Amino acid sequence: MEFQIGDSGVTAPKGFLAAGGSAGIKKGNTRDLAIICSKVPCVAAGTFTTNLVKAAPVKWDQHIVYECPKAQAVVINSGIANACTGEEGLENCRKTAKAASEVLHVPEDAVLVASTGVIGQQLPVDKIEAGVAKLAPFLSGTREAAATAAKAIMTTDTVPKEVAYTVDIGGVTVTIGGMCKGAGMIHPNMATMLCFITTDAMIKKDLLQKAFSEVIDDSFNMISVDGDTSTNDTAIVLANGMAENPLIDSEDDNYARFKEALKIVATELAKKIAGDGEGCTCLFEAKVKNAKTKKDAKILAKSVITSSLTKAAIFGHDANWGRVLCALGYSGADFDPDKVDLSFVSEAGSIGIMKDGKALDYSEEKATEILSCDPVQALIDVKDGNCEATAWGCDLTIDYVKINADYRS
Amino acid sequence: MEFQIGDSGVTAPKGFLAAGGSAGIKKGNTRDLAIICSKVPCVAAGTFTTNLVKAAPVKWDQHIVYECPKAQAVVINSGIANACTGEEGLENCRKTAKAASEVLHVPEDAVLVASTGVIGQQLPVDKIEAGVAKLAPFLSGTREAAATAAKAIMTTDTVPKEVAYTVDIGGVTVTIGGMCKGAGMIHPNMATMLCFITTDAMIKKDLLQKAFSEVIDDSFNMISVDGDTSTNDTAIVLANGMAENPLIDSEDDNYARFKEALKIVATELAKKIAGDGEGCTCLFEAKVKNAKTKKDAKILAKSVITSSLTKAAIFGHDANWGRVLCALGYSGADFDPDKVDLSFVSEAGSIGIMKDGKALDYSEEKATEILSCDPVQALIDVKDGNCEATAWGCDLTIDYVKINADYRS
Repeated sequence: MEFQIGDSGVTAPKGFLAAGGSAGIKKGNTRDLAIICSKVPCVAAGTFTTNLVKAAPVKWDQHIVYECPKAQAVVINSGIANACTGEEGLENCRKTAKAASEVLHVPEDAVLVASTGVIGQQLPVDKIEAGVAKLAPFLSGTREAAATAAKAIMTTDTVPKEVAYTVDIGGVTVTIGGMCKGAGMIHPNMATMLCFITTDAMIKKDLLQKAFSEVIDDSFNMISVDGDTSTNDTAIVLANGMAENPLIDSEDDNYARFKEALKIVATELAKKIAGDGEGCTCLFEAKVKNAKTKKDAKILAKSVITSSLTKAAIFGHDANWGRVLCALGYSGADFDPDKVDLSFVSEAGSIGIMKDGKALDYSEEKATEILSCDPVQALIDVKDGNCEATAWGCDLTIDYVKINADYRS
Repeated sequence: MEFQIGDSGVTAPKGFLAAGGSAGIKKGNTRDLAIICSKVPCVAAGTFTTNLVKAAPVKWDQHIVYECPKAQAVVINSGIANACTGEEGLENCRKTAKAASEVLHVPEDAVLVASTGVIGQQLPVDKIEAGVAKLAPFLSGTREAAATAAKAIMTTDTVPKEVAYTVDIGGVTVTIGGMCKGAGMIHPNMATMLCFITTDAMIKKDLLQKAFSEVIDDSFNMISVDGDTSTNDTAIVLANGMAENPLIDSEDDNYARFKEALKIVATELAKKIAGDGEGCTCLFEAKVKNAKTKKDAKILAKSVITSSLTKAAIFGHDANWGRVLCALGYSGADFDPDKVDLSFVSEAGSIGIMKDGKALDYSEEKATEILSCDPVQALIDVKDGNCEATAWGCDLTIDYVKINADYRS
């Protein structure tokens, strides 16, 4: 069984320290720099943006995660994305890693970096070097330190996003903590998803990557705020082994339990991002049941939460089943429109809207009441098999447009 | 050479009549019924929604276009989409065709039908039968009749959409006229695109279909308002041969000229739909040059005009090149991000924004001036080959959300 540790994040596992502060990248004295550091070297796994246009930090981290044996620290800045910055951008990643290497006493090629913010500008790397040196003495294993780091990576996020769970691995308590920042624009550029997960589990690097890739597929790859895939998307997990659990070195029960706990952490973080999408008023979940294949279930669920028309209807608390059926229909997945059942579910109850592809005689008033809650779930039964998938998004609001139509200034 | 006939539509070609009026489907005395009728039987071609959920009129028309030799009339209603209506919906198409058949003296299986509006409701077919009988005496070949028909098929369109061109085919003037309705919601359901093109060309049915399918691929299939593909999308062309041009029965020069003129008509109509997208303030065109393949060029151009972030930036008159590059990057097409040039073009001039994947030092003020016009073009040179494509969309505005979040009432 997994247990949640309330109000906790990346410092929950043994041996992880964090700090957050201001390096002067953003205007004013706003927090814009965070460090995560493990007391001992970690195995690392990561997944990165599929965008052909990859920001410099993505290239840097791919090298470290895929080609270097260990990682030990992460330096994250908000304010500037270091994307579309060419050779100079990559050199600035190296300089940031070097600065962290010196003050944290870890190898330069054990320092991961991540950036989120305006595209096309070079990082003020001198400020980051100075910021890292200034921040290092504040590294701490407290909840407060993790919370400060979670705040420092925010852009237009309205709340910091942290979670931590424990899981029993071979009689030993293993902890997994995480923080992420979401679907915010920064002064306006693209949304960037950054996620950092720490764990004290002892696990082989290749199994950590395998578990993480599969978990990300069912969590972060199932959310969408506006369909735009950033140049900077990065999710990283560091495992330092300090829980001293029996080493996870094969796909046994311990691996399965660890992966399940990792999935819970990743899913909770992903839902926090979807529920804090730009301008949104609610988390909108689409759950597809009884699809022919897992792939069909995923395509159907994602099509519903990415449909602009459906998202706008959710904002209007409107049980517009036509738009849901329409989004299923153009998704490209295989199903029979004449077999689809649809209900809407929230804390205010559940209401059947459509059965066998046709509208039921439901109460619009009750539907509106259910759709006025946060979160809202569309439960779709395609009655065509036994596979299911869930996707998470948010409503499309007037504020989304306002946020994203602002002039850069 | 093709020549435009100003202020003209489906009655411009010889032998075509039209009428528009109210059958009482919509509230009040609003126009909601249109008829197009040819004096003689026509060969017909059509393209239809790819949505798995197909409305009854789509199924009816597919039967007529693909399996019957001739067509002669079209009955179009707005107000109710006749989608997700099962067997009864299809029976209502038949009843509509039968009513038209009787008053227009044409075979029942030569009557095409089309609907746009609320999904999931049955057509008030008695009102449509009475409406067809009432409207038939007003069928006329005048410009005014065509304009009235174009108005009767509107939903949330803000302007009727008509166009007509002539083209010389073997020394004979052939005329092509068309009307369409666009990316409007009706009291809120999905956007539906309907397009009806008439021509007096003499052309074999299989060649008409071939030309039309190819033309639609470069015109209507290159527009997007919100990425939602309707259950009712229909584009039909009727050719009655009354121009008495040399029969187009092979892919010769005459065929090429006819196809080019048909493409101009379809493109003009498609652009009218994109430029009148729900809530939009401008037509937004993305032209991709020098791509490796035509397919890559199309994917790249469409990705830009469907990106919510880019569309919101256009609404804000913001030369946000990062979003454009980002949309190119996640499109799935093959190109080199470090070779991309980008300019914005409008009647206020042209400005280079990005060269070789990096920002130029451009004037934000001038860029804003250019982006404040309608239409606005993003000109993207990927310098990777010699294929090009253009896609048309519109900006994403506060009004789009308002229109689509309204309660159905």
